[in-house]
Amino acid sequence: MSDQSTAGARPVAIIMGSQSDWETMRHASEMLEALGVGHDCLIVSAHRTPERMFTFAKGAKAAGYRAIIAGAGGAAHLPGMVASLTSLPVFGVPVESKALSGLDSLYSIVQMPAGIPVGTLAIGKAGATNAGLLAAAVLALSDPALAERLDAWRAARTAAVTERPE
Amino acid sequence: MSDQSTAGARPVAIIMGSQSDWETMRHASEMLEALGVGHDCLIVSAHRTPERMFTFAKGAKAAGYRAIIAGAGGAAHLPGMVASLTSLPVFGVPVESKALSGLDSLYSIVQMPAGIPVGTLAIGKAGATNAGLLAAAVLALSDPALAERLDAWRAARTAAVTERPE
Amino acid sequence: MSDQSTAGARPVAIIMGSQSDWETMRHASEMLEALGVGHDCLIVSAHRTPERMFTFAKGAKAAGYRAIIAGAGGAAHLPGMVASLTSLPVFGVPVESKALSGLDSLYSIVQMPAGIPVGTLAIGKAGATNAGLLAAAVLALSDPALAERLDAWRAARTAAVTERPE
Amino acid sequence: MSDQSTAGARPVAIIMGSQSDWETMRHASEMLEALGVGHDCLIVSAHRTPERMFTFAKGAKAAGYRAIIAGAGGAAHLPGMVASLTSLPVFGVPVESKALSGLDSLYSIVQMPAGIPVGTLAIGKAGATNAGLLAAAVLALSDPALAERLDAWRAARTAAVTERPE
Amino acid sequence: MSDQSTAGARPVAIIMGSQSDWETMRHASEMLEALGVGHDCLIVSAHRTPERMFTFAKGAKAAGYRAIIAGAGGAAHLPGMVASLTSLPVFGVPVESKALSGLDSLYSIVQMPAGIPVGTLAIGKAGATNAGLLAAAVLALSDPALAERLDAWRAARTAAVTERPE
Amino acid sequence: MSDQSTAGARPVAIIMGSQSDWETMRHASEMLEALGVGHDCLIVSAHRTPERMFTFAKGAKAAGYRAIIAGAGGAAHLPGMVASLTSLPVFGVPVESKALSGLDSLYSIVQMPAGIPVGTLAIGKAGATNAGLLAAAVLALSDPALAERLDAWRAARTAAVTERPE
Amino acid sequence: MSDQSTAGARPVAIIMGSQSDWETMRHASEMLEALGVGHDCLIVSAHRTPERMFTFAKGAKAAGYRAIIAGAGGAAHLPGMVASLTSLPVFGVPVESKALSGLDSLYSIVQMPAGIPVGTLAIGKAGATNAGLLAAAVLALSDPALAERLDAWRAARTAAVTERPE
Amino acid sequence: MSDQSTAGARPVAIIMGSQSDWETMRHASEMLEALGVGHDCLIVSAHRTPERMFTFAKGAKAAGYRAIIAGAGGAAHLPGMVASLTSLPVFGVPVESKALSGLDSLYSIVQMPAGIPVGTLAIGKAGATNAGLLAAAVLALSDPALAERLDAWRAARTAAVTERPE
Repeated sequence: MSDQSTAGARPVAIIMGSQSDWETMRHASEMLEALGVGHDCLIVSAHRTPERMFTFAKGAKAAGYRAIIAGAGGAAHLPGMVASLTSLPVFGVPVESKALSGLDSLYSIVQMPAGIPVGTLAIGKAGATNAGLLAAAVLALSDPALAERLDAWRAARTAAVTERPE
Repeated sequence: MSDQSTAGARPVAIIMGSQSDWETMRHASEMLEALGVGHDCLIVSAHRTPERMFTFAKGAKAAGYRAIIAGAGGAAHLPGMVASLTSLPVFGVPVESKALSGLDSLYSIVQMPAGIPVGTLAIGKAGATNAGLLAAAVLALSDPALAERLDAWRAARTAAVTERPE
Repeated sequence: MSDQSTAGARPVAIIMGSQSDWETMRHASEMLEALGVGHDCLIVSAHRTPERMFTFAKGAKAAGYRAIIAGAGGAAHLPGMVASLTSLPVFGVPVESKALSGLDSLYSIVQMPAGIPVGTLAIGKAGATNAGLLAAAVLALSDPALAERLDAWRAARTAAVTERPE
Repeated sequence: MSDQSTAGARPVAIIMGSQSDWETMRHASEMLEALGVGHDCLIVSAHRTPERMFTFAKGAKAAGYRAIIAGAGGAAHLPGMVASLTSLPVFGVPVESKALSGLDSLYSIVQMPAGIPVGTLAIGKAGATNAGLLAAAVLALSDPALAERLDAWRAARTAAVTERPE
Repeated sequence: MSDQSTAGARPVAIIMGSQSDWETMRHASEMLEALGVGHDCLIVSAHRTPERMFTFAKGAKAAGYRAIIAGAGGAAHLPGMVASLTSLPVFGVPVESKALSGLDSLYSIVQMPAGIPVGTLAIGKAGATNAGLLAAAVLALSDPALAERLDAWRAARTAAVTERPE
Repeated sequence: MSDQSTAGARPVAIIMGSQSDWETMRHASEMLEALGVGHDCLIVSAHRTPERMFTFAKGAKAAGYRAIIAGAGGAAHLPGMVASLTSLPVFGVPVESKALSGLDSLYSIVQMPAGIPVGTLAIGKAGATNAGLLAAAVLALSDPALAERLDAWRAARTAAVTERPE
Repeated sequence: MSDQSTAGARPVAIIMGSQSDWETMRHASEMLEALGVGHDCLIVSAHRTPERMFTFAKGAKAAGYRAIIAGAGGAAHLPGMVASLTSLPVFGVPVESKALSGLDSLYSIVQMPAGIPVGTLAIGKAGATNAGLLAAAVLALSDPALAERLDAWRAARTAAVTERPE
Repeated sequence: MSDQSTAGARPVAIIMGSQSDWETMRHASEMLEALGVGHDCLIVSAHRTPERMFTFAKGAKAAGYRAIIAGAGGAAHLPGMVASLTSLPVFGVPVESKALSGLDSLYSIVQMPAGIPVGTLAIGKAGATNAGLLAAAVLALSDPALAERLDAWRAARTAAVTERPE
């Protein structure tokens, strides 16, 4: 996990509904880590700890967060509920569920009614990685050094693509 | 709408995310009306009025409700969130949505994680009617007169089935 | 399995279509066990033993049951058929099927026509656990001691949520 | 509707869950009519008239029926339940439902467990027409005159296909 | 496999698109075997051997077959194409496919246009078993001894259902 | 419709299962017309006229066709069956069906087993237009004048895109 | 439409694949308008004008845009392709398609591989409105006046929720 | 892999979004190999190397390619984007994805808007094999020797179908 010591250095909160979501959500943390973006990783369950969720979401801006990444599976209410309680940008990661392969998670997160947006990423690990990248892109708008690191990361990935399969 | 004057006479709360859900949810109200079950009909939006939802759900038992019927569409978080805030039985009605025909509503309501149950009914009007019937069945467990009215309603419906189509 | 010796102490019947559903449905039994709710676990197949089903359902109220939990997979007719034969509250658990991952089970259980409600839970084990919880919530309406045990169980679960993933 | 006066002349029963299914199921009746196959059209609701269904299904063979066509929509239990109560061939027609376009009807009818077969046709009117044709094909196995009428009907349809669209 | 020596003793043809379908379709063969119904098992591929399919289907009635069971997966054209070439009853078994779990097979078989019926069974092994049972039910209409064996098989299955899970 | 008088001038056959598919398939014809590609439009039903289909497909190469566009809906067997009977390139158009919106058509056409390819286009009118374009692209490989007309058509479409919505 | 005269006053670009998407995408424009966020509305088709798309995306940052809202339907490649060509935050709106109701649009936009994020909103108008809100939330991170307008807009919406349906 | 030494001998390009797609796409290469069709296998990622993709697609015709096979998974933009940049025939292979089993890949490839066709094959390996066959069928139109090899390959496959399963 990836907490640094200064609160000001943690502009992103990665929250998830349960410990079992960490296997997916750690990819968001690793992406932010790789880009040098401070962040907190927290378990905040919409269903088991609704009051913790309320407190977290209503205090997120004051706590210095500038973007929230929320992952959940099944009837995944965490991203949308947090978005209803803060005007910070919220990015949702549908965690792959057992029976419905994350389709339930995806629908529960992306189909928000007009008024409360959740920027939704792909189901599973790719989505978690991309939530980290998207949060970084948002922060990079006012952080030129981060913007450079982000561009460098992307350029390195492009350069790593080989010409032929093997 | 169907409010009677005594609080004690309103053991069921029918809540919905927006005025537009009323076209569906009024069928729950009409069913309870037909069975003589007092109830309140309220707009409680998980997304637009999260604090009203918290207050409602946490106070539902003290307010004398014994069952809650919650309808919502799309990323439908109302039934599950209310269920996370009260131990009263919660019955969910997936309101038919435009693009995905209520499949998003259904998944968002029924696929709750272990620990927080929502008894989910069919998509749309049939589901709303049945939520009324199920709430009545629950209340009838300790209300013999209601049990009789419920049995009579069912018997009348059975009797109304003609022998041949025409 | 969890049968106690007094009929009066078994207000819930957990029924399932076949032995193979037990792997799922035992989670309903374990939940009720944990909450101290007496119950019977029975195999009642709508398709292989339709007469047993009729006899069971029509006699359920007289047998002292106050709620029925029914699990089945594929073209899952057991919950709805039992609901058509009793006015007791029926809660349905869609057992995960092989080819369609329980989507067939879910549709067969939840999409009941107006008139015959089945309160449907999530596909698979979470749904079975929640069926136990929902039945307990219904019984708790007239059993303050059970209501307390239910609240305690929920509080313990909330307390068990750690702050950070690891 | 198409009832002739001799019981022996009605080897097929067309049953349906409600009057509203007739708009679909009359296509089965019209097909049988066109092929000169006597039949009865009956409303038998698995959910509203379960006892009528039991009586019908258990007495179907003795009543002289040789094939049963059953149509239903949503959580469509009629075809499978009748098949569990008779060893006559049962053909199921998934009636198109509102929210899920008959996909719920299809899954509820076709996904029967091993042991109780329902020969399922297409969703809606085409399925009803084809249920009539399939029942006729079964009867034609021991009725050469019907076999000839069936072949003639098919030949006429083939002949009616024009060469070019217009 | 289950071929007996007299053509007259083989009223059912079980056909499948490829050797790999046998793992599913042998359940139809085993069911017929158990009921003492003679049958042939043949590989007839609509796509790789279209002419063999034509010859088979057009000659099926003359060959003494009275019912055809056809299994195929993916874009499963075999059952419907055979049905277009014979007026014998055709029962289709959707073989479970890899990516789409047999949903493609199911749609390709069941959604036949008006005029050419295929009585479709469940996806996979249960469907194959049931195709055997349905073919037997059709043959039993004019074979009282088979009707008795079929009823006995069903009764034995009913009797084998235990009362409680273990 | 668009038949010219020289057989050599008709390198493309547009076939469809029924007159009702013409509303969709005429868009393929209009596209070819616009590009000056001769073609025949024929009704060839896999299910109602299987022998016409066989004759057509087996004779298509000798008849001078160089590509075949086949449209069908529901359990859409025409494209795949024609592809099994000719080694000419076959392009399939899933016609939008009523209950399942063409998803059944799409699966029935695109999910062909290894060995028999059908190049499948989008559901409905866009797919029909694109089938015309793809057939033209194939013919243009050995027809420089057509290649020029195709490029011009595409350039014109690009040029027609306005800068801003209005 | 909503273009103001200063480039600096237009931090958001709303792009869409065709004129027909405007009916959906104008809701993004109206939302930004309501919040006083300058923006450009442009038609940029990934398929018909790929070079315009390249030029737009690669120049978007230099043109002063800080967020891009991209809407497209069917095989919707615009949001993901633009995201691959700029490191600005990209928000995707799945436009409702005819046959598949926008499910194809949703999958094409949200299921991006790790490395290239698109923050995806709901299918159709709600999604377009929310894309406007999410872009505003991002800009508000460094624009306190906008943050206040955003909070005021949300507060007004909350206040507008009536207590009871009517 | 299968590159021969003369450019003119490589009329087909097989491109794919990433190394991980090779496990699927090598079946296209093996098919072309078996038919003696020269081809190049290249990694061209729409998302990670959009400029390489542009350069490849715009130069494909001049490089001597006559058909392009493009495979990709998830939000699969490669086939459609290449098709928007060349008028050569493009055949798309939906690579099976993890959560959605390739349904996202299929929709992203096949649902192209009118104007830009992609001839789409089945999800996964069968689709890759068939893309090779379809490209060969296109080339065979002007290469009689290839046409003979293709016919021989098909005849051998037909001959290899055994009569009975074992």
